[in-house]
Amino acid sequence: MNFEQRVAELRLQLPRAAVVPGGIRIPFDWARVIENRCVLSGHGALDADGAPAGPFGRVPNEVTLKQAQQSVRAAMLAMLCTVRGTLGSLDRIRDWVSVSGFVNAEPGYPQTTAVLNPVSDLLLEVFGDHGRHARSAIGVAALPLNLPVVVSAEVLIGS
Amino acid sequence: MNFEQRVAELRLQLPRAAVVPGGIRIPFDWARVIENRCVLSGHGALDADGAPAGPFGRVPNEVTLKQAQQSVRAAMLAMLCTVRGTLGSLDRIRDWVSVSGFVNAEPGYPQTTAVLNPVSDLLLEVFGDHGRHARSAIGVAALPLNLPVVVSAEVLIGS
Amino acid sequence: MNFEQRVAELRLQLPRAAVVPGGIRIPFDWARVIENRCVLSGHGALDADGAPAGPFGRVPNEVTLKQAQQSVRAAMLAMLCTVRGTLGSLDRIRDWVSVSGFVNAEPGYPQTTAVLNPVSDLLLEVFGDHGRHARSAIGVAALPLNLPVVVSAEVLIGS
Repeated sequence: MNFEQRVAELRLQLPRAAVVPGGIRIPFDWARVIENRCVLSGHGALDADGAPAGPFGRVPNEVTLKQAQQSVRAAMLAMLCTVRGTLGSLDRIRDWVSVSGFVNAEPGYPQTTAVLNPVSDLLLEVFGDHGRHARSAIGVAALPLNLPVVVSAEVLIGS
Repeated sequence: MNFEQRVAELRLQLPRAAVVPGGIRIPFDWARVIENRCVLSGHGALDADGAPAGPFGRVPNEVTLKQAQQSVRAAMLAMLCTVRGTLGSLDRIRDWVSVSGFVNAEPGYPQTTAVLNPVSDLLLEVFGDHGRHARSAIGVAALPLNLPVVVSAEVLIGS
Repeated sequence: MNFEQRVAELRLQLPRAAVVPGGIRIPFDWARVIENRCVLSGHGALDADGAPAGPFGRVPNEVTLKQAQQSVRAAMLAMLCTVRGTLGSLDRIRDWVSVSGFVNAEPGYPQTTAVLNPVSDLLLEVFGDHGRHARSAIGVAALPLNLPVVVSAEVLIGS
């Protein structure tokens, strides 16, 4: 697979690995490799240097739909950074399995599907049919750091 | 396995495959088959023609417990439709693995377990011991289309 | 592996298996073994006799961060009780895969990471590198019995 080449062609800028803010402890792994599965923790948006990136707050009152879509796309790029760091190269990915999206949503906000679509679009753009995935997109009451959206996922690793 | 026969015996009516409402884009798969696993996206209630089915809103103030239980049973039938369409037949199922239930709940609503029970009952009724599953049932702030309840799941496929 | 011995060394007291309160029906399994995977349902805190243990309510207004951390640690011990009962011994665990944490949170509560950390700490303390895991920690609108926190997980079983 030539997924790294595809990332370069699309001029996608992956952030540096996550830098945890002072006072926060992360006693879990951003990715866990078990047999041929790579299970990814909940990721939020990072800036280029790996620091958590705003805007922060609830969708749509404090963070607009469009801002939330930008945030979740950044979260997906952070996840690709984690996969690359864990597996050595995105080319070791065989298939995406599933994505779970968590939107920091006002009660009853009906657009969680739209918030998550940039994640799915990006996976299909980079990985083609190998980026296809099952997905859930739910609105939650709260997220770490008051991020507007967090994504987790599972990937199948090639031989 | 004779799960299709069991569905017929129980006179269960599966809906047609989901028809996505205008203006909504679904860039993910309702089911993703990876090796011998079938991972199912979040499903809500459908009417017989595959259109999203009401009632819509939060449990229990806008949608009663009983209505939510009917909705989640319909969501489970929609999921069976997806599995049949993906695998060709429910008889290819070997075992259910897990079910995640998401209830569009008023803050602090303590009955999410009761809301999800019709899903578990239906799985045991159709699949017997092969329908046994681990389960989580959480109350969320928001769901796609303001559905009252959404379920996702994982299934093991037989050889 | 000598995880049972480690539990004894740390003087961890596992509760008895969950006793479901009257009027509540649990038509699912606390753990589901599929091939070499053990998938665990959402677990809350239990007292020593297996009854659901308080405090109950939302974090942080009704249940403090510290109380929620004690509750989630108890939930993790309940999960270990389930694994032991399902597999016969904790020594059959090969690796932890993932943990999902659900905090019954006030809208916008930014500390769900801190609530879940005792779970991760306990896994690393008992299982060392085999306890490493991917994790998500989200704030939800409601949980069964109005528990302050619920955890689910997946474990890989050794040969």
